[in-house]
Amino acid sequence: MTRQSQNDHHLVDLGRLVTLIDGVFAVAITLLVLDLKLPYDSGSLVNALKQMLPSFFVYLITFASIAGYWFIHHLYFRYISQGDVRLILLSLINLLFVTLYPLTASIVGAHPLEPLAMVCFSVNSLLYCLSAWAIWSHASTHPGLLRNNVDPCVLDHEARIMLFVATPLAFSIPLAYLSIYFPYVIWILCAPAAAWWETRRRENHIFLIGRK
Amino acid sequence: MTRQSQNDHHLVDLGRLVTLIDGVFAVAITLLVLDLKLPYDSGSLVNALKQMLPSFFVYLITFASIAGYWFIHHLYFRYISQGDVRLILLSLINLLFVTLYPLTASIVGAHPLEPLAMVCFSVNSLLYCLSAWAIWSHASTHPGLLRNNVDPCVLDHEARIMLFVATPLAFSIPLAYLSIYFPYVIWILCAPAAAWWETRRRENHIFLIGRK
Amino acid sequence: MTRQSQNDHHLVDLGRLVTLIDGVFAVAITLLVLDLKLPYDSGSLVNALKQMLPSFFVYLITFASIAGYWFIHHLYFRYISQGDVRLILLSLINLLFVTLYPLTASIVGAHPLEPLAMVCFSVNSLLYCLSAWAIWSHASTHPGLLRNNVDPCVLDHEARIMLFVATPLAFSIPLAYLSIYFPYVIWILCAPAAAWWETRRRENHIFLIGRK
Amino acid sequence: MTRQSQNDHHLVDLGRLVTLIDGVFAVAITLLVLDLKLPYDSGSLVNALKQMLPSFFVYLITFASIAGYWFIHHLYFRYISQGDVRLILLSLINLLFVTLYPLTASIVGAHPLEPLAMVCFSVNSLLYCLSAWAIWSHASTHPGLLRNNVDPCVLDHEARIMLFVATPLAFSIPLAYLSIYFPYVIWILCAPAAAWWETRRRENHIFLIGRK
Repeated sequence: MTRQSQNDHHLVDLGRLVTLIDGVFAVAITLLVLDLKLPYDSGSLVNALKQMLPSFFVYLITFASIAGYWFIHHLYFRYISQGDVRLILLSLINLLFVTLYPLTASIVGAHPLEPLAMVCFSVNSLLYCLSAWAIWSHASTHPGLLRNNVDPCVLDHEARIMLFVATPLAFSIPLAYLSIYFPYVIWILCAPAAAWWETRRRENHIFLIGRK
Repeated sequence: MTRQSQNDHHLVDLGRLVTLIDGVFAVAITLLVLDLKLPYDSGSLVNALKQMLPSFFVYLITFASIAGYWFIHHLYFRYISQGDVRLILLSLINLLFVTLYPLTASIVGAHPLEPLAMVCFSVNSLLYCLSAWAIWSHASTHPGLLRNNVDPCVLDHEARIMLFVATPLAFSIPLAYLSIYFPYVIWILCAPAAAWWETRRRENHIFLIGRK
Repeated sequence: MTRQSQNDHHLVDLGRLVTLIDGVFAVAITLLVLDLKLPYDSGSLVNALKQMLPSFFVYLITFASIAGYWFIHHLYFRYISQGDVRLILLSLINLLFVTLYPLTASIVGAHPLEPLAMVCFSVNSLLYCLSAWAIWSHASTHPGLLRNNVDPCVLDHEARIMLFVATPLAFSIPLAYLSIYFPYVIWILCAPAAAWWETRRRENHIFLIGRK
Repeated sequence: MTRQSQNDHHLVDLGRLVTLIDGVFAVAITLLVLDLKLPYDSGSLVNALKQMLPSFFVYLITFASIAGYWFIHHLYFRYISQGDVRLILLSLINLLFVTLYPLTASIVGAHPLEPLAMVCFSVNSLLYCLSAWAIWSHASTHPGLLRNNVDPCVLDHEARIMLFVATPLAFSIPLAYLSIYFPYVIWILCAPAAAWWETRRRENHIFLIGRK
């Protein structure tokens, strides 16, 4: 058995991990809607729909968060071609925080004006970002996991995006007790801010590489 | 780094997006059934099943709508070989309206004779069609996303099918206040009409190409 | 455009259809468990578990049915390499009866001794088998859909298996009104009987081919 | 028809089975969260969250169990390249015990201090491990199912891991009646213990092979 095939025992193909990740994202993003139920005792349908509005607003924010995180995961995971045990374990921990979104979204939907509910949601997002940061950091320091010709600093930048998103989420936890509007603003701005950072980084990166 | 590989940073393979889309369609179409529950306080099983009939009818219409939209998506998405950021964002917005079907179907099932419930369902379908139209329009104007030798006008025609389906859905919103039967008729006829349009277009298209 | 590429407009690759089918099977088979809930007002946990026993028994039968149908689908669908519009539409209708299992299983679980509940479940299985029969019949009469060197009579035999399973299911509907035990016996024996038929057919088929 | 193609009728490609397995794992691991619901009658949100703590703790243990079993399945299933009827049937039985986790987790969450609830969860895990053991044993004794150059004893070792995990789970059933803490300790230690065993085995295995 050659050294190469010995390594094959440690490195595994990522096809099934990606199937599991996409499956969990697909189920979680679709299960969110189960929390939106017409209240039974609200008289007319107009009143019932009005009562659902806060939950519906939280639904849209959560959908955008999960979709945004999937998008970032999708953009960068393709640079990784093989996984070691740690990468898979970190990905499974990462998935834990995806599956928790239907719960934390339902807590915010039921208590849209209570700071503690916001803390639950922010902590969920924060832990998602930190576990995603751990994945990209691990990959950037193990070039053997990357596709040929991929610069490890691409994933290092990616790890910084997750920290860039995590920072306002961390601040939203104490700010929720000052005003309940702060967390909502932060959650809504997170995705566009990450997209803006992403665009900026790509331009710089391509520029730098273009000069080589 | 060549110009080609720079573009590779912008264009991404669509395998994972398709997995996510198919996953969301599969989960949404199966979750619909969770809204069909035997009422507990309806005496005999015959009565309980009778009470479920309106919901069951709405279930069949919604199943046919989601299955029909998946079918159209399936037929045309195979002409697209690569995605840019906008295509992925439009697809994620498109998925939002797929995941909303279990909610709007349950609203119609609970209030099968109320115009406002029909408006919810029609708006859901309408927004699905408009976001799908945006996908196909975007693809038809960016030939770099298409498979080799695919004529962009194929996707342009496809975009028109979505508008062709969207038009009666838009009319069904005011018509629901004239008679609650109009929306039901429109929802049921949408899928066969789209299929007919599709068949007609294909014949013409092949005829035109056949003469070249 | 050649005749071949014209046909390419009609025939589509089945990868995404199979993903959707497997997704629906996976979601439906896992959603079944949501119907198994501890009753709240049953005193001790022992009593609650005892109350759940009929539902649990129905759960096992339904799981075995869905798993069995997936198994048969899996064995034969690999002989089909391409799909036309009718094959896809028949497959979507087929999926409708997969997604209905969580409903009909919950009806039987709530009314385990009532013939009408059994009729619901038997009709669901019967319609699944008939729609599956339509798929295999269609494929066996359109050899262009099959993989190279696949004998169309393989799928013709397969269609007969679905009719072979459908026959006792059809009989179970009137028999439910004679004794509620008939449907249970038929449901439990269906899967082994289909497996036995399958084994027998394979031996014959291979024998016949072996002589050529 | 050659002997090879005759065997092709018995051996099937595992792509779809793996899709179904990953789909069921993804749905089951995400459905777990549906059992975590804010109690309605608990006054303040703080009290409601406190009431949810036992269920949340059970949620984490169950997530870790399912994720751990998926991880082990993933590591070893890649050594198998083809399936016979028995392998597929054993895999479907294996999936039954994956889909039961949302039920047994909800039983433990509702009765976190009752031995009988723990027995339900332990029996579920135990049957999962035994059915997984049957898969790996079957594969290790049918080398024709394995990828080229894979040593059958790899899967034999894997089968022993499942028995190694099953043993404390079997002991946790009587121990639950001595103290309710035993099962919790065993469930929490199972995954790290399996990981440790796995690491140890890999080192030995690679060492032995390395000397050849």
